[in-house]
Amino acid sequence: MKLVSFETEGEWHIGAVVDDGDHLVDLTAAGVAADMTVLIGAGRDGLAAARAAVAKSSRRMPLRGLRIGAPIPHPRRNIFCVGKNYVAHATEFARSGFDHSSQAEELPECPIIFTKATTSVIGPGEPIPGRSDQTNSVDYEGELAVIIGAAGRNIAARDALAHVFGYTIVNDVTARTVQQRHKQWFLGKSFDGFCPMGPCLLTADAFGAPADTVLRTRVNGEERQRARISELIFDVATLIETISFGTTLIPGDIIATGTPAGVGIGFKPPRYLRAGDVVSVEIDGIGILENPVI
Amino acid sequence: MKLVSFETEGEWHIGAVVDDGDHLVDLTAAGVAADMTVLIGAGRDGLAAARAAVAKSSRRMPLRGLRIGAPIPHPRRNIFCVGKNYVAHATEFARSGFDHSSQAEELPECPIIFTKATTSVIGPGEPIPGRSDQTNSVDYEGELAVIIGAAGRNIAARDALAHVFGYTIVNDVTARTVQQRHKQWFLGKSFDGFCPMGPCLLTADAFGAPADTVLRTRVNGEERQRARISELIFDVATLIETISFGTTLIPGDIIATGTPAGVGIGFKPPRYLRAGDVVSVEIDGIGILENPVI
Repeated sequence: MKLVSFETEGEWHIGAVVDDGDHLVDLTAAGVAADMTVLIGAGRDGLAAARAAVAKSSRRMPLRGLRIGAPIPHPRRNIFCVGKNYVAHATEFARSGFDHSSQAEELPECPIIFTKATTSVIGPGEPIPGRSDQTNSVDYEGELAVIIGAAGRNIAARDALAHVFGYTIVNDVTARTVQQRHKQWFLGKSFDGFCPMGPCLLTADAFGAPADTVLRTRVNGEERQRARISELIFDVATLIETISFGTTLIPGDIIATGTPAGVGIGFKPPRYLRAGDVVSVEIDGIGILENPVI
Repeated sequence: MKLVSFETEGEWHIGAVVDDGDHLVDLTAAGVAADMTVLIGAGRDGLAAARAAVAKSSRRMPLRGLRIGAPIPHPRRNIFCVGKNYVAHATEFARSGFDHSSQAEELPECPIIFTKATTSVIGPGEPIPGRSDQTNSVDYEGELAVIIGAAGRNIAARDALAHVFGYTIVNDVTARTVQQRHKQWFLGKSFDGFCPMGPCLLTADAFGAPADTVLRTRVNGEERQRARISELIFDVATLIETISFGTTLIPGDIIATGTPAGVGIGFKPPRYLRAGDVVSVEIDGIGILENPVI
């Protein structure tokens, strides 16, 4: 099932996309759940209620013209993010000079986990405020993001996928000079508007095998990043095992799994985002997350 | 005003401590606010209502015997934390070999900001689960924490203190080998139970001038850390200016301002916490945050 947050009559509702993507069923109006976090928190029962609402709903709204927001516009806590999780990107990042933590090694031996502030989340089409970084070092990072369904702690990798509610796309926008200057990456990753998310939340059953899936990032139509999710150094199950080792994961948690090679600082000279650029991140099955830069 | 979260008849309420600390007025029962986040969100009106409730309340509950929780038991997002913000601690950390990011420099030129997961918060007296770190590298970090009242972005240092609702104590408990192994500090700081907080939230007007205030950390009664808040490399106003530069701060945000010298890894060999230890962090005016280690 493809789930979206959308605006209707001045309010945000959630909906299920139907009819080959042309229409949606308003799950909030159908009484299934007020928002995505509530739906996720309801677990299997919530999904069953959503499916029932889709099955019996005669009223289908055309998607065209609707404003679609981030699937989880107000996360319950910071977005978990993974650094240097594709081989070629780890190499380009180490060579860029922007990775303060890199010394001799280029490939991480363990997942590198940091967070983005909740207030950085924006929806599809919303502008990325590149002008917030006065040093003009704003960069894109297209990523697959995992949405946690069932809470858990110390989850073994073999059990981890049972804790996944679904997947979405995140653009882990980064002010490179801020990321470098403050050593820990949080601040340079957490400016308002630096976490475009969407366009939909694809439930785990519909996403199928992430291994075969391709991620592409384009800037003004030019392909910059292209990788298969199977190229992740630490796969989704391993990330869940690692993060949940000592920290309880809760329903609605978002894990951005890392970005492939081809970010702006991978080029010499770096190709930072500029006002007027349009960045799109596409993942097979989920769709295209496109945002202009201002 | 000294505010606390406390348990009464199986529910969590907030209260104002009165009568030289012996009693409290139940602000939730008085209809002022359901919890601390709601009270903070209500701004000046909330504080005025709390003061009015205290002034007219004839029913005062004895504090003795009440279970006191973290002032904000369920933060709306991760706790902002500051690394290496006292000179002597920055030096001991660099020399410990545990600071992956340290190269030649010991003192940061800009504030180092990272976060702790919301699920790491525990209240006074609750056990710190040291056994969660199988490498036995659990360390204490006594810190002054700032609670944001009024939302803001790009807040100038000269205006910053007007955005402070109050102060509390945080013990930024850290699994050192996990902090080091994952490069970014988040995971080693975010185990469940690794963020003792409390015992109260002291409103900004009552805290007065943080500069004159002393912080002390003791392990089993032995003093390990002692510093004046005025020794912070980056003071509270500068931290708010730095964090809010691109990121909107929201009511209830918590900023742990960094720890002074005297943490376990400052000793050779390191003096990690062990089961049975009791850690207490004291800050003048706020009180003592004491937690056993299991």
